[in-house]
Amino acid sequence: MKERGRFLVFEGGTGSGKTTQINFVRQELADWQFYREPGGTPFGEKIREALLGLNDYPVEKYASLFAYTAARANLIRGKIIPELEEGANICLDRYWYSTYAYQGALGVPKVFIWLVSVVATRGLKPDLVIHYDLAPEIGLLRKKGAPDLDRYDVKELEFHQKLRRNYLQLAKLYPGIWQIVDATRPPEEVFEETKKILKKFGLIQ
Amino acid sequence: MKERGRFLVFEGGTGSGKTTQINFVRQELADWQFYREPGGTPFGEKIREALLGLNDYPVEKYASLFAYTAARANLIRGKIIPELEEGANICLDRYWYSTYAYQGALGVPKVFIWLVSVVATRGLKPDLVIHYDLAPEIGLLRKKGAPDLDRYDVKELEFHQKLRRNYLQLAKLYPGIWQIVDATRPPEEVFEETKKILKKFGLIQ
Repeated sequence: MKERGRFLVFEGGTGSGKTTQINFVRQELADWQFYREPGGTPFGEKIREALLGLNDYPVEKYASLFAYTAARANLIRGKIIPELEEGANICLDRYWYSTYAYQGALGVPKVFIWLVSVVATRGLKPDLVIHYDLAPEIGLLRKKGAPDLDRYDVKELEFHQKLRRNYLQLAKLYPGIWQIVDATRPPEEVFEETKKILKKFGLIQ
Repeated sequence: MKERGRFLVFEGGTGSGKTTQINFVRQELADWQFYREPGGTPFGEKIREALLGLNDYPVEKYASLFAYTAARANLIRGKIIPELEEGANICLDRYWYSTYAYQGALGVPKVFIWLVSVVATRGLKPDLVIHYDLAPEIGLLRKKGAPDLDRYDVKELEFHQKLRRNYLQLAKLYPGIWQIVDATRPPEEVFEETKKILKKFGLIQ
């Protein structure tokens, strides 16, 4: 029987530099599979199109919860769980923690988010979550005027404050796997800490 | 305060003639709003595209449950509940009963389908469900080679048998609102019975 692969997740709010860090990490973890949420499958990418972008139609908060969860179920149950069982190592840009933080900040009860997420993912737990944390005032300033803003990036400060609190709540719920990185520093410094964590968890030498 | 509008739902499996009947009913209920599931909103129509059609990518069963439920939450919470409260009468082509029947036939636990459906719809119950029932052998024969087949239409007989059993289970769970129409007869005869039911429920004169 093959050994199960490792499963690494990146999380962070608007302007946290998460994407930049993931691009750095790709160099270090060259033989890993990289996926993003929502997306990662043809079905999931279509769901992503419906959810993101600065569309001019409304998406009710439960509708967004279920749509993110749909894309996730397809990716995790249909692809990532079988690949991990085959021994592949997998890195995921956002997991259900994002839904907990974002849809939780919209007012969906967190226990319900947790419930549907456990079902959608068959309870799959990462080996490590790296969370790029910063004050939302700074994150919003960094992202202002960027060409790739989505419907969450443009929400008011209060939303982003709730979002951060929800992430920090998850950090307390999953202390064994959750690592917070201060993302206010320059990207190169943040990457040094990222590498330290990857070493600590035995994911790089 | 305005009186709440009436809410009518149509259900049926492959080849049941549901769409034909709804087109007949439009003439009788000229001042009603007609919506379809999945769809009915710009977001929901995008989800519909991701779900239906004979696409060449896989959709895991829980992914389909959550995607149907996402489109539904957007339509019911975002549009139908407010419109009913404003006094509009609404006719819906499929409701969560379809998800119970179809995703149930795929093997998703029915109690979980029920749970997410109650949340997505805030428990909104129709005044009447008209269910066009027929042996799946006949329905499949009718639909064979049709230009608008979706990924469920082309499933094996056993799936359609389970689907029918699930619908008939719902009929027993909601006897007060659920009306079964034998859909093996010619469309005009089926429409006569449809009209009788609409009269009985006070929806037409």
